[in-house]
Amino acid sequence: MNSHTVYHTFKTGERREFVRITDDVQEAVDESGIAEGMVLVSAMHITAGVWVNDNEAGILADTLEWLDKIAPPSWKEPDGDVADELLPEGGDYRHHRGGEDNGDAHLKNLLMHHQVVLPITEGKLDLGPWQEVFYAEFDGRRSKRLVIKVLGE
Amino acid sequence: MNSHTVYHTFKTGERREFVRITDDVQEAVDESGIAEGMVLVSAMHITAGVWVNDNEAGILADTLEWLDKIAPPSWKEPDGDVADELLPEGGDYRHHRGGEDNGDAHLKNLLMHHQVVLPITEGKLDLGPWQEVFYAEFDGRRSKRLVIKVLGE
Amino acid sequence: MNSHTVYHTFKTGERREFVRITDDVQEAVDESGIAEGMVLVSAMHITAGVWVNDNEAGILADTLEWLDKIAPPSWKEPDGDVADELLPEGGDYRHHRGGEDNGDAHLKNLLMHHQVVLPITEGKLDLGPWQEVFYAEFDGRRSKRLVIKVLGE
Repeated sequence: MNSHTVYHTFKTGERREFVRITDDVQEAVDESGIAEGMVLVSAMHITAGVWVNDNEAGILADTLEWLDKIAPPSWKEPDGDVADELLPEGGDYRHHRGGEDNGDAHLKNLLMHHQVVLPITEGKLDLGPWQEVFYAEFDGRRSKRLVIKVLGE
Repeated sequence: MNSHTVYHTFKTGERREFVRITDDVQEAVDESGIAEGMVLVSAMHITAGVWVNDNEAGILADTLEWLDKIAPPSWKEPDGDVADELLPEGGDYRHHRGGEDNGDAHLKNLLMHHQVVLPITEGKLDLGPWQEVFYAEFDGRRSKRLVIKVLGE
Repeated sequence: MNSHTVYHTFKTGERREFVRITDDVQEAVDESGIAEGMVLVSAMHITAGVWVNDNEAGILADTLEWLDKIAPPSWKEPDGDVADELLPEGGDYRHHRGGEDNGDAHLKNLLMHHQVVLPITEGKLDLGPWQEVFYAEFDGRRSKRLVIKVLGE
């Protein structure tokens, strides 16, 4: 059994942003020399996620709009009545009592999850035709890390 | 270390449907000869998911009703005011500008996730008494693939 | 390749409760003697989850409040109009026809997921500075199991 570990650091220009990392994950697999196995792609922060979906601008914009409705920020006006009601009673997150303003990003992390595990077959990410891997930043504009761990032989 | 890879193709009769695949996953584990390890069960599409839950018809129907409220389709009437408001501003997904109508299925994929990793102990899926594995189709009636990758020894 | 399997049983005092298990997972890794690999942490029940997030009381309380709005119980008054509308048509889950009252816990399981896979590097859980592992109980006050499976070498 072999393993290989790579870290990437992201500092997005936007507070919320999708960063396509499919090629970075394949590169880690290439470096590992592993032909059959699994690769874990995992955000090391609690306000970010990893998603496998389509690299289509409409989907990514739809998703960010929708996430703001079901896991609403309190640092901007609620995006409609549903978002308003999904904010905590009193209008702000308990988490913000310590000076933070990213309570919504923790809920977005819950919805999306911070990690995926991808299959490796014959040295390649064994993905479907439209599957791309994204690092999803929900509280960016500062350095945040991601770990890629390849396991197999 | 050993590995074993199996692909399954689904073409569901309904647009949305749960397909129980617990036995298919166990069969892949049996074929692998692996006694201790993990098995990755992963949809190869971006409008499907994999879920571990109870094989009880009420839960599956409840779940489909609820998913249509929080990740609403635009190809049918919204299922209430919440669904109506969770649709994108303007009433339709940006993703649909390219001719698609499955924007909701991408959000359902986000909620449910496209993959699970299951433990293998003494050659068996190490599941709790009610845990069953489901392929969850959100945009079916066409051929879609799933990969099962067993890893261990 | 080596593997190591540990089971934990939880019987929470509250119906819903987060239990921090980071040290239990590290202990399983220590016992395994594995330096490089992955560890699967998986609830063996369909009304519980595993979450990696911050051990901050405000976040955990925010999360439970929010989960009751988007995956509403029917055994207490809906927490607002959104929760009321997200209940099934007729006001109760089909799943409850069999005498259960935990339909909401199955939806919370879907949202949070029942498992995470964590990287192991140099014998340690390779987590970010704020990442802690939680067992999330959504239908407790009875004995429920969790499996930890370590894989690597």
